[in-house]
Amino acid sequence: MEFWSLGSTGFWGVDTVRRSSWVRMFHKRFHAPGTPPATLVPAESISGEPPKITLIEYDAAGFEERKLARIEEAFVCRDNGKTSWINIDGLSDPELLRALGRHFGLHPLALEDVLNVGQRPKIEEYNGHFFMVAQMTYLDAGGAVEGEQVSLFLGPNFLITIQEEATRDLFEPVRQRLRSGRGVIRGMGHDYLAYALVDALVDHFFPILERIGEGIEEMEDELLAAPTRESVGRLHQLKRVLLHLRRVVWPTREITAMLNRDETGLIKRETKVFLRDCYDHTVQLMDVIDNYREATAGMMELYLSSVSIRTNEIMRVLTVITVIFIPLNFIAGVYGMNFENMPELQTRYGYFVVVGLMLTLAVALLALFKKKGWL
Amino acid sequence: MEFWSLGSTGFWGVDTVRRSSWVRMFHKRFHAPGTPPATLVPAESISGEPPKITLIEYDAAGFEERKLARIEEAFVCRDNGKTSWINIDGLSDPELLRALGRHFGLHPLALEDVLNVGQRPKIEEYNGHFFMVAQMTYLDAGGAVEGEQVSLFLGPNFLITIQEEATRDLFEPVRQRLRSGRGVIRGMGHDYLAYALVDALVDHFFPILERIGEGIEEMEDELLAAPTRESVGRLHQLKRVLLHLRRVVWPTREITAMLNRDETGLIKRETKVFLRDCYDHTVQLMDVIDNYREATAGMMELYLSSVSIRTNEIMRVLTVITVIFIPLNFIAGVYGMNFENMPELQTRYGYFVVVGLMLTLAVALLALFKKKGWL
Amino acid sequence: MEFWSLGSTGFWGVDTVRRSSWVRMFHKRFHAPGTPPATLVPAESISGEPPKITLIEYDAAGFEERKLARIEEAFVCRDNGKTSWINIDGLSDPELLRALGRHFGLHPLALEDVLNVGQRPKIEEYNGHFFMVAQMTYLDAGGAVEGEQVSLFLGPNFLITIQEEATRDLFEPVRQRLRSGRGVIRGMGHDYLAYALVDALVDHFFPILERIGEGIEEMEDELLAAPTRESVGRLHQLKRVLLHLRRVVWPTREITAMLNRDETGLIKRETKVFLRDCYDHTVQLMDVIDNYREATAGMMELYLSSVSIRTNEIMRVLTVITVIFIPLNFIAGVYGMNFENMPELQTRYGYFVVVGLMLTLAVALLALFKKKGWL
Amino acid sequence: MEFWSLGSTGFWGVDTVRRSSWVRMFHKRFHAPGTPPATLVPAESISGEPPKITLIEYDAAGFEERKLARIEEAFVCRDNGKTSWINIDGLSDPELLRALGRHFGLHPLALEDVLNVGQRPKIEEYNGHFFMVAQMTYLDAGGAVEGEQVSLFLGPNFLITIQEEATRDLFEPVRQRLRSGRGVIRGMGHDYLAYALVDALVDHFFPILERIGEGIEEMEDELLAAPTRESVGRLHQLKRVLLHLRRVVWPTREITAMLNRDETGLIKRETKVFLRDCYDHTVQLMDVIDNYREATAGMMELYLSSVSIRTNEIMRVLTVITVIFIPLNFIAGVYGMNFENMPELQTRYGYFVVVGLMLTLAVALLALFKKKGWL
Amino acid sequence: MEFWSLGSTGFWGVDTVRRSSWVRMFHKRFHAPGTPPATLVPAESISGEPPKITLIEYDAAGFEERKLARIEEAFVCRDNGKTSWINIDGLSDPELLRALGRHFGLHPLALEDVLNVGQRPKIEEYNGHFFMVAQMTYLDAGGAVEGEQVSLFLGPNFLITIQEEATRDLFEPVRQRLRSGRGVIRGMGHDYLAYALVDALVDHFFPILERIGEGIEEMEDELLAAPTRESVGRLHQLKRVLLHLRRVVWPTREITAMLNRDETGLIKRETKVFLRDCYDHTVQLMDVIDNYREATAGMMELYLSSVSIRTNEIMRVLTVITVIFIPLNFIAGVYGMNFENMPELQTRYGYFVVVGLMLTLAVALLALFKKKGWL
Repeated sequence: MEFWSLGSTGFWGVDTVRRSSWVRMFHKRFHAPGTPPATLVPAESISGEPPKITLIEYDAAGFEERKLARIEEAFVCRDNGKTSWINIDGLSDPELLRALGRHFGLHPLALEDVLNVGQRPKIEEYNGHFFMVAQMTYLDAGGAVEGEQVSLFLGPNFLITIQEEATRDLFEPVRQRLRSGRGVIRGMGHDYLAYALVDALVDHFFPILERIGEGIEEMEDELLAAPTRESVGRLHQLKRVLLHLRRVVWPTREITAMLNRDETGLIKRETKVFLRDCYDHTVQLMDVIDNYREATAGMMELYLSSVSIRTNEIMRVLTVITVIFIPLNFIAGVYGMNFENMPELQTRYGYFVVVGLMLTLAVALLALFKKKGWL
Repeated sequence: MEFWSLGSTGFWGVDTVRRSSWVRMFHKRFHAPGTPPATLVPAESISGEPPKITLIEYDAAGFEERKLARIEEAFVCRDNGKTSWINIDGLSDPELLRALGRHFGLHPLALEDVLNVGQRPKIEEYNGHFFMVAQMTYLDAGGAVEGEQVSLFLGPNFLITIQEEATRDLFEPVRQRLRSGRGVIRGMGHDYLAYALVDALVDHFFPILERIGEGIEEMEDELLAAPTRESVGRLHQLKRVLLHLRRVVWPTREITAMLNRDETGLIKRETKVFLRDCYDHTVQLMDVIDNYREATAGMMELYLSSVSIRTNEIMRVLTVITVIFIPLNFIAGVYGMNFENMPELQTRYGYFVVVGLMLTLAVALLALFKKKGWL
Repeated sequence: MEFWSLGSTGFWGVDTVRRSSWVRMFHKRFHAPGTPPATLVPAESISGEPPKITLIEYDAAGFEERKLARIEEAFVCRDNGKTSWINIDGLSDPELLRALGRHFGLHPLALEDVLNVGQRPKIEEYNGHFFMVAQMTYLDAGGAVEGEQVSLFLGPNFLITIQEEATRDLFEPVRQRLRSGRGVIRGMGHDYLAYALVDALVDHFFPILERIGEGIEEMEDELLAAPTRESVGRLHQLKRVLLHLRRVVWPTREITAMLNRDETGLIKRETKVFLRDCYDHTVQLMDVIDNYREATAGMMELYLSSVSIRTNEIMRVLTVITVIFIPLNFIAGVYGMNFENMPELQTRYGYFVVVGLMLTLAVALLALFKKKGWL
Repeated sequence: MEFWSLGSTGFWGVDTVRRSSWVRMFHKRFHAPGTPPATLVPAESISGEPPKITLIEYDAAGFEERKLARIEEAFVCRDNGKTSWINIDGLSDPELLRALGRHFGLHPLALEDVLNVGQRPKIEEYNGHFFMVAQMTYLDAGGAVEGEQVSLFLGPNFLITIQEEATRDLFEPVRQRLRSGRGVIRGMGHDYLAYALVDALVDHFFPILERIGEGIEEMEDELLAAPTRESVGRLHQLKRVLLHLRRVVWPTREITAMLNRDETGLIKRETKVFLRDCYDHTVQLMDVIDNYREATAGMMELYLSSVSIRTNEIMRVLTVITVIFIPLNFIAGVYGMNFENMPELQTRYGYFVVVGLMLTLAVALLALFKKKGWL
Repeated sequence: MEFWSLGSTGFWGVDTVRRSSWVRMFHKRFHAPGTPPATLVPAESISGEPPKITLIEYDAAGFEERKLARIEEAFVCRDNGKTSWINIDGLSDPELLRALGRHFGLHPLALEDVLNVGQRPKIEEYNGHFFMVAQMTYLDAGGAVEGEQVSLFLGPNFLITIQEEATRDLFEPVRQRLRSGRGVIRGMGHDYLAYALVDALVDHFFPILERIGEGIEEMEDELLAAPTRESVGRLHQLKRVLLHLRRVVWPTREITAMLNRDETGLIKRETKVFLRDCYDHTVQLMDVIDNYREATAGMMELYLSSVSIRTNEIMRVLTVITVIFIPLNFIAGVYGMNFENMPELQTRYGYFVVVGLMLTLAVALLALFKKKGWL
């Protein structure tokens, strides 16, 4: 799902403005009203390729990564004390989800939410496991903000992540850290892995916001210097991006907060220190987003005032010119009348006197406008 | 009660704008002040046809659906262990409500609310049963948003629903599921049935909001391209629809939240998982509505700025043309004066010199405006 | 105290706009600063006629209504098991209030609030009794919104109501119900009577709001069709009425809520069900008022945009006409110059060529404006 | 510290607008950063006259009022069972404050706040006594709103008040009541005296708000009738006064609320009833201030719309006149051309036909404008 | 990090407007997404000079201040009962931080925040110590608002402060007090020292706000008198500074509040009285900032209304002049026509009659405008 192109020429190209859609931005997929709850229908908009399944197992000592052809292969070796992470890319196979659900005891309503992409991020506790929905948001190669849904199931001895399309996988750096054994990650369990994944998602908002911050600065310069008609459209677009980001980050903050408050024992004490750090990042994100929103609100005002000043300046020019020439024109008109008896016309220097009079009047009016501050 | 036509030609036809009414939108029916509380007066605006009564009884094994001529027929077989649902379409017979009230112990104040349609959705607990008021909101064939009041009484062994007019019955899909025995619905009791009905109402807001989202997009394109005078009226109308939906969805959220928190035992634990899902949907609806409201607020700004830019552009054209021709006109006027002694008039190339001067002046002014960015 | 005339001609007549007063609307009467607290000074603005005292006593069996000459007559028969209601119309006699206070143990600060009319509605608990201040708000014969203060003292065996002027008594329907013995009212005690009186006050806001809702609709039509200068004044007035109603209804809601939460035992359990209904009505009122306020805020925007579109249209006409004729005028001016050597003037068809040129130019400019969408 | 003059000519004289200062309005005096906390530096802006010390002692039986030359005289007779009130006017002597602090055990940080005038009103509990800062706000003779800081220390057997300048002493009426023995004041202790003083401060806001309410009304009439350029400045000033009053009254409300909730035993139960009344007054004040603020916000809109309508009207006049005369002028210009061969010029009635044509055209255009509603 | 120059010429020089950056203002430094948490990377933007380490040790009796070459020298003498304060200026050496972390048991996530400057102020409790991030904000010599991050670690027997660049050290006055032994500071422990440092930071906001208050006043005068195009830019800038200050002060308030609520015993009871005073100062700061924000919001309105009035005035002049001269011009045009048969032209006083007529018309129109209030 592509939302907006941040573009490569200027900030947002006009052509990309059309591409974003309020409907897609704010709507989760929904069943036809009346469908029984917890019905799993494959998303028709999603390519029919079978989902890719990856199983990663590791402990402090070792690391193994396998591509699976069938999900059932992942069910075999669950009690070897290792941390196991099942990642599924693609939503085209509801049967796979049903199998997962049966094996791990996942609730059908949760599985329904996995398929109905476009959900608001959220966390729910079902008997013995957490179900999280998050948005994987990133800038693509062309500068467009893209987003897709990621669902996480965190149980005492499993972590399952299900991605929508996986055109770009923000979890890769975590995998790299697992492979290389850098940091503490291999020594901690499923809960730390879940933290690391959520943290990876949260961290990706920072470069996006930095890009938007640069866009705000460019626009501010533009609005103060020479606002054009496209500026308003772009500003409106900018507000929309921020509205969307707020809508995604705010509930993400709730997810980290709730994991932090966890009392089920799924989240260990050592991990909570890290989750507090992650929560802290979401607070910073909200802080930046809200400040940017306030800044864009102020820029609309800036723009409107800028237009009204320009109108005022144009009016001033029009008025000064008109007011100076209209009386002159009138004088010329009077002496253009064809009355037979107009004594001034016969005088020798009448013409020069009148022209002199005109010049005097023009200079006097100019002086008056100067004094009034209109010039 | 029809509120707004979303229309089939364009988004909202101008003719349908008139049809909505703030009074009808925001007002519950009320008695003349001073009427004793709990007085049941038939709604005069409602057709005099006798209400239609339907009794549905089912359990995991079987399903029976009967149309009743008299409400008393529904009182006979209450203790057969089956789940029974009494549905009444039409409010023209207060005596029927009184009979219901006597038999099931419904509070007269609740019955009064059933008749005084236009209530804000709400849930109240009376001794041993819940009383809920909800709004059945849908798009009719012509694209108009329609709404009517539904009242639900949920007791330990009864579920009664009372609809205002039943021109379109959103409960039909639930009935279909009962008939076909699809899903778990037949195996659960009255509380699950109540959930299923509320869920059906909530689900119907999604297509309405999707339609409105499309309308917002159309309007946004229009405002950026070529705003007309009708745009403001339509935008105002759009804000009104959203105001109304907010007013209906917000308390509906409260209903699902309170059912979820229920401590009377009327709602079973299995059902609460489903109610949490339904609550989640209302949260999503509120989220979408609030975002749409914010979007429309931004569009009003967009519109005003668009008008002020256009005014600015028109001013610019007027000013450029006037400022160029006024001095030229003045020169022509001067040489149109009838003074006898105007030496220039007698010179051979005076006319050509003056015309050349005029052209030079015009070109100079054009260059100046070009430089000032007014062209 | 008359606040605003809703008028009979149109919505608000201009003449009645002047009559409302922010000072009177928002100010309670206050003593000169420094006056000792609980000083009872008769309101100087109130007619000097002695207050009218009415004593109503009833139980399920009987009903008696007496006009008393002196308040002391009401103190005689307090322990006959009947429900007794003392109603006082008029505030001109502080001594009467002092006598009441001594006999029933009312706090001097409460009595001070009775006299200092214009209080915000409120409820206070003193030792063993409730003291309530409410606003009796109604539409008078001419359509004006009028309001006066009502004070209620509710004790275990007395209910005292003190009205400001009693030009129109909203308690009359309650008295009618008592007289006729309709409903349950005679069988319940002082607390139910207090509820019935508060409910009567609350119910009277519904027709007022319905009237205002109609006013909003009329104004909306007007603003979309042909906004005039008076529209703004009327809209401003409308916002003021809503501001005032909000100010009165909001604390009234608090009164019903607090009576509902009562733990002193003054309010019986049976009565609380009715109070919840009354509370529900105040919530509905707030809901309607807030929606109306939001609607009027949107209408100000509508109005401003309407004016700016009109200005834009007028500008367009001015610009089109000016831009077409200014060049034509210039051409005419050129050939009106009196140079001796202007070859075109002597040509045979010069005049016709020039006029043809003018027509061509006018048509070309018209076509251009047509294309630009300015016509 | 004078804030704004409410003026005697009109509402606010233009000259007094300059006098108010955001810095003085919103800033407490502060030490140079880095000064150790609790340093007592005399306020340089305060006159060097020695502070005036007054000691009042009274009980139900008697009353004594003495002017003291040295603060130590007040420390002698503290245990005579009488209520004693030490009032100090003037802040020029930090040594006096230090002596007070040593004798009564006042915290140096509190004494620092006494000297750093311009504090936000607040209440703090130190070991065994309350420290309150309040603003004494009043209208001076010329109608200006003036304010100065008052600090109160309330201990179990002392009440100390310290005023900034005492140009006008709002505590005088309380002293009068003490002298005359009116009311209950002499029979109550230090806590009631503290209440009486706070109440005196709170009561003085009512006449100020009444004056402002009148100002709002005048301005509203002015804005609806004939808004001038000064109106905006005055309206802005009015908003500023309200912003300031809100800033002073809001924390004063907190003071009364906290005294009311007191659990240290410093405030007796009898006094709390009066404090609730005082709290109630601050609630009313906030209510009025907030309503006035909302009213002034609406008036800014009213003003802007008023200006835009006027611009629209002026545009209309300009457009009508220009559009009528421009074509007429053009016709006259055409027949003023000097072509030799212009057949119409030689016809006998050409002139009259043309003038007739002109009149017809003018009348037709007037009719058109009439129809368009521009006249 | 320089944010805005408050400038020395006027308030904000236009040149300095460009220098502030939304990105720098609102963004903390962040790692490339995917970096493991708690990675210490030296800030590349920071000069490579080695950090300066200072160790201060004191008790009531003595004071010692030493510059250290290596951080390990600070670890030697920790248990001498003295209060020790380690101050580090510069962030170029992550190894130093790691050594600190190992010795004092500081959490790696906290150390990461020390390096990633631009953090929102915050306080966190780790096992046995507090970690605080604050912003050192001050006006530099040229009047620019500068800010840099300060991190504080407060443990039971250590206080460590780490500054970003130390171009200007706001802690110097505290050091002076320690050296001179003024006040109580030497007799209190680490917690009081931490308070003194936080208080020094908080105190520095007062002169900044006073400067801004003066700027608001200047701008207000300017907006009421003669608003120019630069005014809007400067006002926008002013809002931005306030937005930034709010963003820094608000969480600083939280820091003081949390230290005040401390239950770990790190903060002694005597110190809490001082912390309450410091908390009080942050409340005052927020109060001033919010009032300034509201004031600047009102000033934008003031500005827009000012521009619209000026446009209105210019329109009025244009309209009056145009409307007076257009008919006169027309009359002159009529008698400039070249019809052969125009009887008026041959009359003797025709010219004078027409000129008289023109004057009369002009005077009549002037009178009309006077009456309409347009002159």
